[in-house]
Amino acid sequence: MRLVIVGGVAAGTKAASRARRLNPEMEITVYQEEPEPSISECGLPYLLSGVVGTREELVARTPERFAKQDIEVLVRHRVEKLDAAGKRLSVRDLAAGEAFEDSYDRLVVAIGARAVLPPIPGADLDGVFKLRFLTDSDEVRRYTEEHSPKRAVVVGGGYIGLEVAENLCRIGMEVSLIEGADRVALAYGLEVSERVEAELAKHNVKAYTGEKVEEFVGEGRIRGVRFGGTELETDLVIVGVGIKPCVDLAEEAGAEIGPTGAIRVDEHMRTSLPDVWAAGDCVETTHLVSGGPVWVPLGDTANQMGRVAGTNAVTGHDGVEFPGVLGTGIFKVFDLGVGKTGLSEREAEDAGFEVVSAEIEVYDRAAYYPGAGKVFLKLIANGSTGRLLGAESAGTGADKLTDICATAIWGKLSYPDLINIDLAYSPPYGPALSPVIQAATILSGAFERARQGVRASE
Amino acid sequence: MRLVIVGGVAAGTKAASRARRLNPEMEITVYQEEPEPSISECGLPYLLSGVVGTREELVARTPERFAKQDIEVLVRHRVEKLDAAGKRLSVRDLAAGEAFEDSYDRLVVAIGARAVLPPIPGADLDGVFKLRFLTDSDEVRRYTEEHSPKRAVVVGGGYIGLEVAENLCRIGMEVSLIEGADRVALAYGLEVSERVEAELAKHNVKAYTGEKVEEFVGEGRIRGVRFGGTELETDLVIVGVGIKPCVDLAEEAGAEIGPTGAIRVDEHMRTSLPDVWAAGDCVETTHLVSGGPVWVPLGDTANQMGRVAGTNAVTGHDGVEFPGVLGTGIFKVFDLGVGKTGLSEREAEDAGFEVVSAEIEVYDRAAYYPGAGKVFLKLIANGSTGRLLGAESAGTGADKLTDICATAIWGKLSYPDLINIDLAYSPPYGPALSPVIQAATILSGAFERARQGVRASE
Repeated sequence: MRLVIVGGVAAGTKAASRARRLNPEMEITVYQEEPEPSISECGLPYLLSGVVGTREELVARTPERFAKQDIEVLVRHRVEKLDAAGKRLSVRDLAAGEAFEDSYDRLVVAIGARAVLPPIPGADLDGVFKLRFLTDSDEVRRYTEEHSPKRAVVVGGGYIGLEVAENLCRIGMEVSLIEGADRVALAYGLEVSERVEAELAKHNVKAYTGEKVEEFVGEGRIRGVRFGGTELETDLVIVGVGIKPCVDLAEEAGAEIGPTGAIRVDEHMRTSLPDVWAAGDCVETTHLVSGGPVWVPLGDTANQMGRVAGTNAVTGHDGVEFPGVLGTGIFKVFDLGVGKTGLSEREAEDAGFEVVSAEIEVYDRAAYYPGAGKVFLKLIANGSTGRLLGAESAGTGADKLTDICATAIWGKLSYPDLINIDLAYSPPYGPALSPVIQAATILSGAFERARQGVRASE
Repeated sequence: MRLVIVGGVAAGTKAASRARRLNPEMEITVYQEEPEPSISECGLPYLLSGVVGTREELVARTPERFAKQDIEVLVRHRVEKLDAAGKRLSVRDLAAGEAFEDSYDRLVVAIGARAVLPPIPGADLDGVFKLRFLTDSDEVRRYTEEHSPKRAVVVGGGYIGLEVAENLCRIGMEVSLIEGADRVALAYGLEVSERVEAELAKHNVKAYTGEKVEEFVGEGRIRGVRFGGTELETDLVIVGVGIKPCVDLAEEAGAEIGPTGAIRVDEHMRTSLPDVWAAGDCVETTHLVSGGPVWVPLGDTANQMGRVAGTNAVTGHDGVEFPGVLGTGIFKVFDLGVGKTGLSEREAEDAGFEVVSAEIEVYDRAAYYPGAGKVFLKLIANGSTGRLLGAESAGTGADKLTDICATAIWGKLSYPDLINIDLAYSPPYGPALSPVIQAATILSGAFERARQGVRASE
């Protein structure tokens, strides 16, 4: 019995390890196009600044480590074709330049997503980079060592762009950020975007919002970025405008692609092809609040999906499930933590919910305890049932508040639960009542007023 | 219509504020024995060391602040007798030394708990203190300013004793701690106690466990503590062996006292007396995991109970509920955060549950991210249903893990939920999979093995 996994990193290597743990006999091979099978992609921005000192720290496991588990990992190998009926693969050894055929009994597709480079003139200039894999950060490092850039432009105000901006600042660069939308951190509400923009300004990152890059200017090497009638001089550009799922291999083999553009899988991570599972950044899943399909490419989710795909692929039956996601995420920009879970107010309205929301800004611990910092929290609730639909937080301890709210949404809690919920209090760790409890109490007032409004108008 | 509240601090003042917000007309009077109506008792240990600089920082609100809300707060007033049938109170003005009568339409009893001073010879020596109210910390401060103690003995290895030990160390005292049980932090499992004891040792606090204090030795002023055949020289003793609920007033008036020794209330915070509600450290409530009565005197819970008592007392009907607690708590001792929620393994077994548990010790964030520290997490689950019954955590980020688990228990989540739950990941805030997810995965393995064991023996 032979299990083949296409793609490593989080989902693929997790599927492989899980399969090996459950079945010591099965042949397991992982094909990976990049030179490292298992890395922390989320750590890449921190490698730019030296917050993470060496690239080796981001390599979770080497092929040799996998070999000890009796998992064959072939890096620099691209799977070019999948014949699902014949259970065969066409593989190219990129180092040797040779192609060969392989076969499988069961297959897990975990080929991830790739960075989008928009069709901007000059995107191929030296000094214009994306940041998706270790090889990209190697290239940036080589370039910075050779040219010692003083000014940098980051294109894209999502979390990758913001993390990159922070880390380029840390090594003394003068950083500008260009975002096409009218604000950064567009996945969040306006209140959060304003806080992120203030944090950028505080650290002298100039943010240009509502601006589309028209051209990267330079001869051979980048010299400037042209947008909105001006040209901004720069020595380095990093583009972080998004990623898209790698679906070609599966789609050409006949696998169903979902409405988000990623591979469709059921809750057992099965694709529409027989004996083919998929996991990670290349698949879509269910948003547990909206109920609709969603594509949320994140390392932790990929890891969890990989576990389910590996378990079911090795046993061949639908033993475990991956129910879906809440769209939970967090990032740090300078001293500001920014997290969200569930639906934003606009997403909730778009999904057809009647929405009631409440927001607060309070200290993250007892105000008299050293280190106390402000944190913003917004709760979004279903106006008919009171159920929590989403939360956004920005500030000190935003990670904790986001995780409490994510768990609350997972547990289908409503605002009366959150008023009385028994969270841990001690002055070094929180205010007497958690910001979650305080915000839920305000939410309760909004519900009372809404009820009174209904009564008054009846 | 007149609402009287006996006792301030967390529950009483919250009830008063809530009542005023809901009803601008009602007369509201709060009687409080101590000189400050509203303080953060949890901050007292930090006042010893100057981590909290002034006593004023712990005073949440003054009587003048309450007066602006049209709430009459009379401090240094003790309510000595309650006539529930006649709705009358006997009150003593402690400053003036005079007694007077008052009446109410509705009453909230929120008189809290008092520190237990065990009947040890010499407990009345100068330099032997408890630490329950601001007045206690004033006395300790006066004593330390006068006598500049170099050595201190803390009696009691619960969270108060541990916090006090840390704060006395911070100001350069040589601190010993004496605990009657065979380990400190007895409310936690052995794994946590060991970590706390290691943290004490690391900071040169000598802990004597399994030792009962036989005598406080000295002439007028403390000179030593005698236990287990030795005498330990000391200049200061702080006793933190526990507190007990103040129930005399209510009990003598005929209110039902529960099996924990605290005042019994229903989920609307009503006592068995007509038009008398109670809240805070003087009442018992329901443990939402065991289902039994429990007395958990904590500031945040008191606050939540006060809100419910105040709401229902002002409206006179059972509008809102306080369902109960999970026994969630956290404390800090030096650099170690220690939290728990739900039942410990032993408490779960005592409550009749079949128990499966799992524990891990991992980094609190990506191992390569600066500041990463180890954190211990133990999950306790119902062996038949898989439901989470409790969690204990010690280390960096224990507060976050405790709150995630508290929310999970509140939401009745089981280990398969916790394997797939969508928590927030980014290298500065967590490992790729939250310790909660990692521990749940180990828990899942324990369940699999248990099932296989059952199958093998069938």
